[in-house]
Amino acid sequence: MTVKPLGDRVLVKMEKEEEKTKGGLFIPETAQEKTQIAVVVAVGDDKDEIKVKEKDRVMFDKYAGTQIKIDGDDHLILSMGDILAVVS
Amino acid sequence: MTVKPLGDRVLVKMEKEEEKTKGGLFIPETAQEKTQIAVVVAVGDDKDEIKVKEKDRVMFDKYAGTQIKIDGDDHLILSMGDILAVVS
Amino acid sequence: MTVKPLGDRVLVKMEKEEEKTKGGLFIPETAQEKTQIAVVVAVGDDKDEIKVKEKDRVMFDKYAGTQIKIDGDDHLILSMGDILAVVS
Amino acid sequence: MTVKPLGDRVLVKMEKEEEKTKGGLFIPETAQEKTQIAVVVAVGDDKDEIKVKEKDRVMFDKYAGTQIKIDGDDHLILSMGDILAVVS
Amino acid sequence: MTVKPLGDRVLVKMEKEEEKTKGGLFIPETAQEKTQIAVVVAVGDDKDEIKVKEKDRVMFDKYAGTQIKIDGDDHLILSMGDILAVVS
Amino acid sequence: MTVKPLGDRVLVKMEKEEEKTKGGLFIPETAQEKTQIAVVVAVGDDKDEIKVKEKDRVMFDKYAGTQIKIDGDDHLILSMGDILAVVS
Amino acid sequence: MTVKPLGDRVLVKMEKEEEKTKGGLFIPETAQEKTQIAVVVAVGDDKDEIKVKEKDRVMFDKYAGTQIKIDGDDHLILSMGDILAVVS
Repeated sequence: MTVKPLGDRVLVKMEKEEEKTKGGLFIPETAQEKTQIAVVVAVGDDKDEIKVKEKDRVMFDKYAGTQIKIDGDDHLILSMGDILAVVS
Repeated sequence: MTVKPLGDRVLVKMEKEEEKTKGGLFIPETAQEKTQIAVVVAVGDDKDEIKVKEKDRVMFDKYAGTQIKIDGDDHLILSMGDILAVVS
Repeated sequence: MTVKPLGDRVLVKMEKEEEKTKGGLFIPETAQEKTQIAVVVAVGDDKDEIKVKEKDRVMFDKYAGTQIKIDGDDHLILSMGDILAVVS
Repeated sequence: MTVKPLGDRVLVKMEKEEEKTKGGLFIPETAQEKTQIAVVVAVGDDKDEIKVKEKDRVMFDKYAGTQIKIDGDDHLILSMGDILAVVS
Repeated sequence: MTVKPLGDRVLVKMEKEEEKTKGGLFIPETAQEKTQIAVVVAVGDDKDEIKVKEKDRVMFDKYAGTQIKIDGDDHLILSMGDILAVVS
Repeated sequence: MTVKPLGDRVLVKMEKEEEKTKGGLFIPETAQEKTQIAVVVAVGDDKDEIKVKEKDRVMFDKYAGTQIKIDGDDHLILSMGDILAVVS
Repeated sequence: MTVKPLGDRVLVKMEKEEEKTKGGLFIPETAQEKTQIAVVVAVGDDKDEIKVKEKDRVMFDKYAGTQIKIDGDDHLILSMGDILAVVS
């Protein structure tokens, strides 16, 4: 089962809760919280727009993207423009 | 009876329910569910924009496109930009 | 009496009800129904944008275009971008 | 007294009611009615955009343009993009 | 005291009421009235956009521009795009 | 303490009330009042867009820009496009 | 733990309250207050758009950007266009 994103889209796998704060990063869990972190699983074919690669941990606005489940795990399809930063 | 999409549009045939979860992909059936899967039946003439081909299984936002029935089967006319990924 | 569309506009004549389902195509008559079919009567002068020709049966979003009556028959002036597909 | 439209604008003189249906064209006078017809009196200086000429009878959306009276007659200043078709 | 408009902006001086109908032009004073006339006092430095010159009488949408008083007289700063026509 | 505007932005210092009407210019103090005058203190680095210089008195829409206080004085950071005219 | 902004984005660290008024700059703490100051920690890779560098103190609209905490400190990811000025 493969999901191949198109154009400038990026498929990411959501991190489990316990992984989110590793390395000192903390996303505030309040009403103002707006970001999430996930790991890149596959990228689209638009070489000019795609600035991340597989296995990058990326940060994005909480309400960005489209939710899907693959083999029971939560994933998102994001547009490259929804990705704010790479976390390492 | 033929429906030929124009420009960057793509005609897709909706999958029956039992087909949707094959290969481990699962679209959550909750209020948040937002994607659907269908099979490409015909593509428009805009070669630069069209990135899918007949028989591709494609994933798109649930509220994208325009519904039509052809010979009793549910179809959609999507714009290429509504298609998020190819599933294989 | 002639109505000559300008630019990328297309003049279409609405089909009578009994013609709409010929060839197995069926537009669902529910609240969700969103498409209609009509026959092209005249096209604008923007050669680059116009992708249909006289006598084509075209499909478009139900609320697209501007209604006029010519010799008692319902017509619409559509923009090329409102036309989704050619039906044959 | 001269009104010279600028750029892609067109000055049109509204037709009297009795003129509107000549030649078999009928604009439905219901809540859905959306078009009107008028005669071009003067055009702007944007040669690339202007596609009509003086004395053309043109059709446009009912709520387009800006109303003025010249010597007691109703006129409109329309943008070229508001004009749907030439009627002859 | 000088007000020099910038870019494609135009400074106009409002006409007194008695001047508005000279030459047979009449702007309807109803709820639908939408245009006004004023005389150009100064123009911006954007030569490509500026299509009027000092002393031109220009017509514009009633709610366009920004009001100022200079030496007690009502003026407006308009963008070139707000000016519909030159009246002569 | 220095505030250096970026791009096409301009830092202006608000004029005291008594300065506003000098030279015969009067900004009406009614509900319709919409302009203000200030003196340019610093300009951004976008040479193509910046059309004013330090010490120019400029006129702008009342609700434009972002308010800051520097050493107790009211200032605004405006975009060049918010500035309507230079007053001299 | 590193957060690397993408494209024209800039990571800034919020200043503690006591730092905000140093050098005579004062951001009014009223309902109208709209700006904040922070120190640049990292910049994106879009060399053409990025006009600030690490350690610059920058001013931005209060509601701009996306909040994150890194090692317990408040940070924001801003787009370059949200940054109004450099304060020094």
